[in-house]
Amino acid sequence: MAQDLAEAAVAVQPFGERVAAAVERKRSQLVVGLDPVLEHLPVEVRGEAQLGRTHAADAAARFCCGIVDAVAPYAVGVKPQLAFFEALGHDGMRAFEEVCAYGRSAGLLVIADGKRGDIGSTARAYASAYLEPRPNGAPLADAMTAFAYMGRDSVDPYLSAARRHGAGLFCVVKTSNAGGAEVQDLALSDGRKVWHQVADLVREWGEELVGDHGLSSVGAVVGATYPREVAEARKLLPQSILLLPGVGAQGGKPADLARAFTSGPASALVNASRSVIYAYREAGIEWRSAAGLEAERLAREIWSVSGW
Amino acid sequence: MAQDLAEAAVAVQPFGERVAAAVERKRSQLVVGLDPVLEHLPVEVRGEAQLGRTHAADAAARFCCGIVDAVAPYAVGVKPQLAFFEALGHDGMRAFEEVCAYGRSAGLLVIADGKRGDIGSTARAYASAYLEPRPNGAPLADAMTAFAYMGRDSVDPYLSAARRHGAGLFCVVKTSNAGGAEVQDLALSDGRKVWHQVADLVREWGEELVGDHGLSSVGAVVGATYPREVAEARKLLPQSILLLPGVGAQGGKPADLARAFTSGPASALVNASRSVIYAYREAGIEWRSAAGLEAERLAREIWSVSGW
Repeated sequence: MAQDLAEAAVAVQPFGERVAAAVERKRSQLVVGLDPVLEHLPVEVRGEAQLGRTHAADAAARFCCGIVDAVAPYAVGVKPQLAFFEALGHDGMRAFEEVCAYGRSAGLLVIADGKRGDIGSTARAYASAYLEPRPNGAPLADAMTAFAYMGRDSVDPYLSAARRHGAGLFCVVKTSNAGGAEVQDLALSDGRKVWHQVADLVREWGEELVGDHGLSSVGAVVGATYPREVAEARKLLPQSILLLPGVGAQGGKPADLARAFTSGPASALVNASRSVIYAYREAGIEWRSAAGLEAERLAREIWSVSGW
Repeated sequence: MAQDLAEAAVAVQPFGERVAAAVERKRSQLVVGLDPVLEHLPVEVRGEAQLGRTHAADAAARFCCGIVDAVAPYAVGVKPQLAFFEALGHDGMRAFEEVCAYGRSAGLLVIADGKRGDIGSTARAYASAYLEPRPNGAPLADAMTAFAYMGRDSVDPYLSAARRHGAGLFCVVKTSNAGGAEVQDLALSDGRKVWHQVADLVREWGEELVGDHGLSSVGAVVGATYPREVAEARKLLPQSILLLPGVGAQGGKPADLARAFTSGPASALVNASRSVIYAYREAGIEWRSAAGLEAERLAREIWSVSGW
């Protein structure tokens, strides 16, 4: 069994390579965020969600799997946000596992968005939870998000999973929300900002994990709501895949993100969550069709902006 | 139902007051961290853990509930570390819920240690997962840990739970690990360090939540492995409860922490995890007895150091 796993691990390409292959194959840099909120689910999906958490979690899983089906032709990945599953308790985590497995079986890269961060011994548990092969032989996700605030030893277990199992890591560098500036934009003694220095650390951590396409398995989360900072991050992190959330409901626009792609077609992934998965609420058509149409439209727009 | 919850919420004291009352009643500032790692569990508790995650999670729950029983006379709280439960999948989260409920029923404050952090809409889901009343009317935990890297809007939902439900929040300020310095100790343009400024933010966020004992419901995580920084944090955060992890396995010593308590007997909580829960491995006695003895010893040492 241990040997099987070792062999399976060897067979897995580094994350950066897998992203490059997926982007080329699908001609898309779109990642769809899965943020299931009960009140927003279509009535026909909600079912008996009001009867308790087991039903609510079932509804969340049904919804997310339906979205996976709808967007799989147009997106390279999905980004289930752990918070929304945790809010439904252990039933929600069962739904999370189901959605991750479903996403992977649909050929999508799955990015577990939990922004974890802790000391090494604890981070090892997070790596084991999300990036390492589980008892069935497959990891839950292809990549996860993490904070860099606790430094190198707090991300070492994720880097180790990247080396051994082809996992990916996206470190939180510059976030899409207004409040992020309160810490991230503080001026350092050398005139740079805190997030610039965090970006430097991420580059350093990722250097040993750069694949044939010139992309590292260690990427960075940079808010699409701050286009100037996206361009700066591109320069600071020439070999990192930038994960750009904030398009759609948060106000970010693909047109402003062209400079994110100067390191290659797969050098940035653009995430949209609510504007895709709840597109039916504006569109007035069936929810999966609405999500599929919006994903297709967005993927095409991003591809065109990327200039590849 | 909604009204019942509202009334229940009104009846809950603010977190700072609850900590003060617990510390006075027990003459203890000890928090025991619950980090269940299968390989470290006593053989008789492990049971059939090798047969799969359901069994493993059952073993983790049995172990943590046994530790709760053993340390309840000496500790004011327990701090289950989410990572170790998440590593066991949704079964692990079921165990987490069981352990939290058991800890609260034993009269202990439960601090869910997950160091979450995300944009407001996502943080609302985390607050709902850990701090807000659940379908049975009780929240999972009394307090949670969170990163401040994303600023005020990322902690607003936790502050709201503090106001409405008497919840507590511990923001990660200066961590116990060596790598933490890579970001937290960066020099700002005004000569201070990044973590000083994070501490200032935490003070500001907590000002509206200071109770009769002069303690805010918004506390700070400061590593017990850095005594000088603990003393600095005390000055920067005179009304915050400092949660000090790192005693025991990580090398922190109670004797170095006296200055943490100058804002009152309940103004700091000292967390020890591995050195208490796995004390049996050194002591060569029954695991619960070993944990109880070590908790009693440590609680007495900390109380004496605190000078109250």
